[in-house]
Amino acid sequence: MSSSKNQTGENQAWLDAIKWNNDGLVPVITQDFETGNILTQAWMNREALSLTQEQARAVYWSRSRQKLWRKGEESGYQQNIKEILLDCDNDALVIKVEQVGGIACHTGRARCFYQRLENNKWVITDPVIKDPEEIYKK
Amino acid sequence: MSSSKNQTGENQAWLDAIKWNNDGLVPVITQDFETGNILTQAWMNREALSLTQEQARAVYWSRSRQKLWRKGEESGYQQNIKEILLDCDNDALVIKVEQVGGIACHTGRARCFYQRLENNKWVITDPVIKDPEEIYKK
Repeated sequence: MSSSKNQTGENQAWLDAIKWNNDGLVPVITQDFETGNILTQAWMNREALSLTQEQARAVYWSRSRQKLWRKGEESGYQQNIKEILLDCDNDALVIKVEQVGGIACHTGRARCFYQRLENNKWVITDPVIKDPEEIYKK
Repeated sequence: MSSSKNQTGENQAWLDAIKWNNDGLVPVITQDFETGNILTQAWMNREALSLTQEQARAVYWSRSRQKLWRKGEESGYQQNIKEILLDCDNDALVIKVEQVGGIACHTGRARCFYQRLENNKWVITDPVIKDPEEIYKK
């Protein structure tokens, strides 16, 4: 595979190494670098990952809105990058982040994984820290 | 959405709650329950998740082999389930596991996420604990 360079001439071979899926995306697992909690699972395309690396903050690809999603652009709860890891198959990423404001989920919770399977039922484990209507108010 | 019951009459509404993708799969993030390390990112279909819950050990769906993949069936490095978590959109799972033998990756490493981005290069961070040829020998 040939490598490529971006506008500043920077070597982009590390982006070429990733096996993007048929939609040009890679799944991204976001982990709090301090607590180890898994905050979210989202997706990036090549541009999103390139921006994430350049700006040292998480930029995802929103599949529902079909556009770049700068995490925290509305809520203020951005994610500052501490570490970017790639798996053995080159088709999944882990990013370790500092979660600004301590809220990663659009429901106002610390993390998106707040439903735990107990006796064949999903039980909500985490409290709402801030009302989403307050987070996303115009 | 109506709930369903399995052969033993057990309520399966918790499986109905999951938003399976177009291939009938959901992404699964596997985390070591002791260290918090993210070990692997894999996939489950409905049967795999049902078996994972029933047997309290990880059973995935292998997309490359198109069949159920009982983690550790060849290597012995099975994953015993400690916790199953679902995200806010009901389309991603985290399982916290006890990793038997301390090796999750087919390369013989503790985890699959052993490549770290440093100065625009992927650098291998983790040692091979056991030679894969030893792990998968006939």
